[in-house]
Amino acid sequence: MSFNTFGHLFRVTTFGESHGVAIGCVVDGCPPRMPLTEADIQPYLDKRRPGQSRFTTQRREPDQVKILSGVFIDEASGEQVTTGTPIALVIDNVDQRSKDYSDIKDKYRPGHADYTYDAKYGIRDHRGGGRQSARETATRVAAGAIARKVVPGMRVRGALIQMGKHRIESERWNWDEVERNPFFCPDAEKAKFFEGYLDDIRKRGSSVGAVIEVVAEGVPVGLGAPIYGKLDGDLAAALMGINAVKGVEIGAGFASAALSGEENADEIRMGNDGRPIFLSNHAGGILGGISTGQPIVCRFAVKPTSSILTPRRTVDRYGAETEISTKGRHDPCVGIRAVPIGEAMVACVIADHYLRQRGQMGETPAWPFARV
Amino acid sequence: MSFNTFGHLFRVTTFGESHGVAIGCVVDGCPPRMPLTEADIQPYLDKRRPGQSRFTTQRREPDQVKILSGVFIDEASGEQVTTGTPIALVIDNVDQRSKDYSDIKDKYRPGHADYTYDAKYGIRDHRGGGRQSARETATRVAAGAIARKVVPGMRVRGALIQMGKHRIESERWNWDEVERNPFFCPDAEKAKFFEGYLDDIRKRGSSVGAVIEVVAEGVPVGLGAPIYGKLDGDLAAALMGINAVKGVEIGAGFASAALSGEENADEIRMGNDGRPIFLSNHAGGILGGISTGQPIVCRFAVKPTSSILTPRRTVDRYGAETEISTKGRHDPCVGIRAVPIGEAMVACVIADHYLRQRGQMGETPAWPFARV
Amino acid sequence: MSFNTFGHLFRVTTFGESHGVAIGCVVDGCPPRMPLTEADIQPYLDKRRPGQSRFTTQRREPDQVKILSGVFIDEASGEQVTTGTPIALVIDNVDQRSKDYSDIKDKYRPGHADYTYDAKYGIRDHRGGGRQSARETATRVAAGAIARKVVPGMRVRGALIQMGKHRIESERWNWDEVERNPFFCPDAEKAKFFEGYLDDIRKRGSSVGAVIEVVAEGVPVGLGAPIYGKLDGDLAAALMGINAVKGVEIGAGFASAALSGEENADEIRMGNDGRPIFLSNHAGGILGGISTGQPIVCRFAVKPTSSILTPRRTVDRYGAETEISTKGRHDPCVGIRAVPIGEAMVACVIADHYLRQRGQMGETPAWPFARV
Amino acid sequence: MSFNTFGHLFRVTTFGESHGVAIGCVVDGCPPRMPLTEADIQPYLDKRRPGQSRFTTQRREPDQVKILSGVFIDEASGEQVTTGTPIALVIDNVDQRSKDYSDIKDKYRPGHADYTYDAKYGIRDHRGGGRQSARETATRVAAGAIARKVVPGMRVRGALIQMGKHRIESERWNWDEVERNPFFCPDAEKAKFFEGYLDDIRKRGSSVGAVIEVVAEGVPVGLGAPIYGKLDGDLAAALMGINAVKGVEIGAGFASAALSGEENADEIRMGNDGRPIFLSNHAGGILGGISTGQPIVCRFAVKPTSSILTPRRTVDRYGAETEISTKGRHDPCVGIRAVPIGEAMVACVIADHYLRQRGQMGETPAWPFARV
Repeated sequence: MSFNTFGHLFRVTTFGESHGVAIGCVVDGCPPRMPLTEADIQPYLDKRRPGQSRFTTQRREPDQVKILSGVFIDEASGEQVTTGTPIALVIDNVDQRSKDYSDIKDKYRPGHADYTYDAKYGIRDHRGGGRQSARETATRVAAGAIARKVVPGMRVRGALIQMGKHRIESERWNWDEVERNPFFCPDAEKAKFFEGYLDDIRKRGSSVGAVIEVVAEGVPVGLGAPIYGKLDGDLAAALMGINAVKGVEIGAGFASAALSGEENADEIRMGNDGRPIFLSNHAGGILGGISTGQPIVCRFAVKPTSSILTPRRTVDRYGAETEISTKGRHDPCVGIRAVPIGEAMVACVIADHYLRQRGQMGETPAWPFARV
Repeated sequence: MSFNTFGHLFRVTTFGESHGVAIGCVVDGCPPRMPLTEADIQPYLDKRRPGQSRFTTQRREPDQVKILSGVFIDEASGEQVTTGTPIALVIDNVDQRSKDYSDIKDKYRPGHADYTYDAKYGIRDHRGGGRQSARETATRVAAGAIARKVVPGMRVRGALIQMGKHRIESERWNWDEVERNPFFCPDAEKAKFFEGYLDDIRKRGSSVGAVIEVVAEGVPVGLGAPIYGKLDGDLAAALMGINAVKGVEIGAGFASAALSGEENADEIRMGNDGRPIFLSNHAGGILGGISTGQPIVCRFAVKPTSSILTPRRTVDRYGAETEISTKGRHDPCVGIRAVPIGEAMVACVIADHYLRQRGQMGETPAWPFARV
Repeated sequence: MSFNTFGHLFRVTTFGESHGVAIGCVVDGCPPRMPLTEADIQPYLDKRRPGQSRFTTQRREPDQVKILSGVFIDEASGEQVTTGTPIALVIDNVDQRSKDYSDIKDKYRPGHADYTYDAKYGIRDHRGGGRQSARETATRVAAGAIARKVVPGMRVRGALIQMGKHRIESERWNWDEVERNPFFCPDAEKAKFFEGYLDDIRKRGSSVGAVIEVVAEGVPVGLGAPIYGKLDGDLAAALMGINAVKGVEIGAGFASAALSGEENADEIRMGNDGRPIFLSNHAGGILGGISTGQPIVCRFAVKPTSSILTPRRTVDRYGAETEISTKGRHDPCVGIRAVPIGEAMVACVIADHYLRQRGQMGETPAWPFARV
Repeated sequence: MSFNTFGHLFRVTTFGESHGVAIGCVVDGCPPRMPLTEADIQPYLDKRRPGQSRFTTQRREPDQVKILSGVFIDEASGEQVTTGTPIALVIDNVDQRSKDYSDIKDKYRPGHADYTYDAKYGIRDHRGGGRQSARETATRVAAGAIARKVVPGMRVRGALIQMGKHRIESERWNWDEVERNPFFCPDAEKAKFFEGYLDDIRKRGSSVGAVIEVVAEGVPVGLGAPIYGKLDGDLAAALMGINAVKGVEIGAGFASAALSGEENADEIRMGNDGRPIFLSNHAGGILGGISTGQPIVCRFAVKPTSSILTPRRTVDRYGAETEISTKGRHDPCVGIRAVPIGEAMVACVIADHYLRQRGQMGETPAWPFARV
């Protein structure tokens, strides 16, 4: 994982700025002969796309993905499939309105990466946040759509479980509900509450943070690697690498600090399929950096959007003290659109580990290995 | 970061099992001509070393580090310095008592990686946890001692801020206190409480989790890289990769989800040194994956030790259901010894980014670049 | 260097097939604030472009490069400069004529990668060689144009020094001549001879191999790394990775096997600039994997184009024995167009090592370090 | 491949200096459950070991390898096997005689890396060449012994085919002969000649170069990756990275430049096993960077040992001009001992690609895929 490339065998390299010509990515290492067309990718982009409700930025981007390479028609099936060579994906930038951002050219917005980009590079494309813009995450969502196809039987789903101080009730969790409200919230009652709550925040030009949970089911046991290639380590990097994320946890996460060893240990019994099952999942599906076969459960915290109407004190690039308030199009809760992004990152990490596991171990499962 | 190697320009590769001949690591990419002897490394190992109080495992390991390569006497100064070639460090295993572990050879301890290692590899060195043992972290601490010397002016310190449900009072934080109690706790009052609290847990053969905070001061602005080489992304991977860690946060972390944009934004003023200063540090010293020059603040949650006296239900490697209770030498709160380990990982990550930044940008700071 | 990505700090990822929509690359890790427009890249692409004389394939590709990201207008200078973020380059495929290739869809052309691609991936874009086509090298040439700007004072030039059995006379070497003939040949007399020689081969539908020499001047001393990151090791990989290359040598190369130690050793004197100079350059500018400050001299052998008119025995993808002769548009000596490609690869390798050296060592030269 | 680490899934990191405490390596990513003891490695080290005839340096090193980690007794078979965790190997330095080298402390030996190491690092362990010494290659040979076991059915053998100007007769090639003479020469007649020839060179304190050929049989079709992860590209880097190597070729190599397309193309017929066979092997078993299933044939040129008795002009580290002649223990033809080293590097590269191929493609062969 370095600079703008991510993964080892399933590798994603992204490029592009918010208001440049286009954004895109190259997905390398994908197994060949997997059916793949733009139609497999577009639904995930549509889910992340801005402007779909009044709760997300009103920038209107069709986010139409084009595949430039790495696919071909399989003569036998007539289907378009991957060829095992790099898959380049491009999404044109359409609704750029660069003038919206002209007043932030010289001023560093608190909470944004304006100052750090300038301090690092000495130059930055300020329009819409340039490379630091969440717009880049569209390319990750596209890559994630491909990653989902790499691991047979895997299903990766995410949900918003907290907005501001308001946490959902876990007993009301209903995956079907996630598709029915504009917050990707699995708790119908809380979703209803969020409508008024977020409307109020939006109208005040304020913003609020959120917590997202991503669950990956159908992940084979044995993925991950000890020490520095741990599955949870790679998930943590992938999720912390999403814009505005400030915390990541696996399974019981920070709550595990308050538990006793007796409470935390997930006891094991034999399942009907001849594989161990765990009576609880405090581990979040990962022990010692390696998947257990249980669902992998990750959560991450998204800070409130830093673009707010209330003026904040700051400095400009010439070192003068000043104030700024942001009037552009923004999400009052950027955490909402982080749901499909989090799913995509989790899918990419698991796909990479799936290939790495197959590389070192082959396809014959190691366990059960000593049954008499 | 792959398998057992970590870092890009400052690279650490570790090896060894808990009850093998030795553990060790190779540190590659270290700048040349840095003074380095075993005496620079040993104090950090001593801090992590088990058996120093009744609150850590009673295994007695001198943890004496030997440098096998990568150093030479500088004729001009008479000092031993790094040569820029790989530095191999070895620590012999001494107090192994393998018999302690013979009854866990076939049974999978809940909360440990016994089952996942077997399922992944089909073979495992079960003695003392083998490769999954926290013993491996000694080599990370050794590498961290070298990393600290790479970044001029950097100071990395850690502290235990929560044990079980008990959080310290931040207004009582005193760094000097950390060295004075066996918990690395910066709150003297809470440390006193922890003595009785943990003694009780220890005597019952139970265990408890903890939260650790690591603060890196003196980190230059501009370290990190956008998108996939983010400083916080790499820190998250490094800290999540420590044994028993289930959550990582930067700055305000999970609490930021409950904040409004107004509360969360760190306002900026000009400092006396002609560089921006931030009026608060919810960002934890990182914006857009790049360091701001403020202290870098990370926290991580350590789950309770899974080795406990109370019998737990499990299965054995032959698929039979059974029970297990762990009687070996263990830490009632493994989070305590995670303090020096967390410091080491943070130091390694920052050292790596320091070199990467210098590679891409050179040594001339980019900012202030446009002062008239 | 893995799959379709190349380099560590200066990283190039390429994508695209011969007859797909477009080819392109992402250049990551480039230092910021370097002036860069399409006009800096286009001349090198034009040099490599097919169809410029009767001695190269008659495919007509404008090879117009577009920069999609990673550049911005520097306000101070008004120039377009790099921003330090990924630079995506795209070249549309225009003159594709896929029908030319329909008869090779099922037959494996001897000397081409048709069989190995099918055996590896089970699917391949056969049109024009798909991903195996030399067309991909256009993107390398584009990346190389950027790499040239990374190392101050570096100049990388290449020349064809052998075609078939005919080697140039080194005493007639004239760099200016290289631009004056369609062979990039520095020996005017031999270039004249090649006209008739290659015309004859071309008319017979045959082909011939070549040897190319690339010289990099102005490379600082100290680039490279011992053991596995050797400058010559990375050059060897980069040059051997060009299509149709079967051999690489540095300095005296294979001829050094026949030399005695006395003949081979490059004696050293002090130069007027206070730096050592070498009285000869059998080493080709590299000792122990590290640059000496002398010109870096590499040569590589390009096999004859495998696409020839004479029918050759082969098999088809169904396992039936058959014959094939190739009638498409092809270069009678593919080595000619390998000259700008070789230059590009050498420039990329040196740029990467330049940044890596700066990362580990900083910008203060280590030598002379002990002058009294 | 970076600095001192080599390979992607089968990864080797080496450390150590010629006259330090020890040299060694860490082999990471090795598949688990492969039988492995020191006895599997030692024979290859013995083959490379100095002091076995009057034609190699008289330094007496037992080169006894110790495995520190990554192996365990498999209960079922009673055998010691790999566990899939890092295998650390250490070889103590015994016969160091550092005084031999005291006079080269300040003078740069022409042809050696003394100057470039000093210029890069500003410090170097001069004793016996320190890190630049060929002694480091012992660790590669050890790693290669493990690599050989990774690819089922693979056999890697090397031979010296040229010394000075004297090339063997290929029709006299006899693999059995390689073990019978101190030159690893497959031509008994030429080996006999080499005895007197090299004795003369040795007595005069001179040296001579050599060409080595390595052949890997039993390599599956499909290993390698297009563009930058080419099998031949990685082989070129690996072989060029051996001390004193100045050229690498695959198959027909540089000779292919002089061939016509008709001569060079390896025609294809169907073999009795239902797989294509090639009627010749100019390709050296690799097309488009991917293995064909034919034997992989590489050659590399080793320059003459730079340590010679005849005084050569040079400079010292203070910038003064001087002369030097080397009196230490040296190989008159360092190419001889490069034979087992070349074999090891080829084995490591192929093992890495074997695992990478399995990762991306799985274990089901892609071809024949369309047989009706």
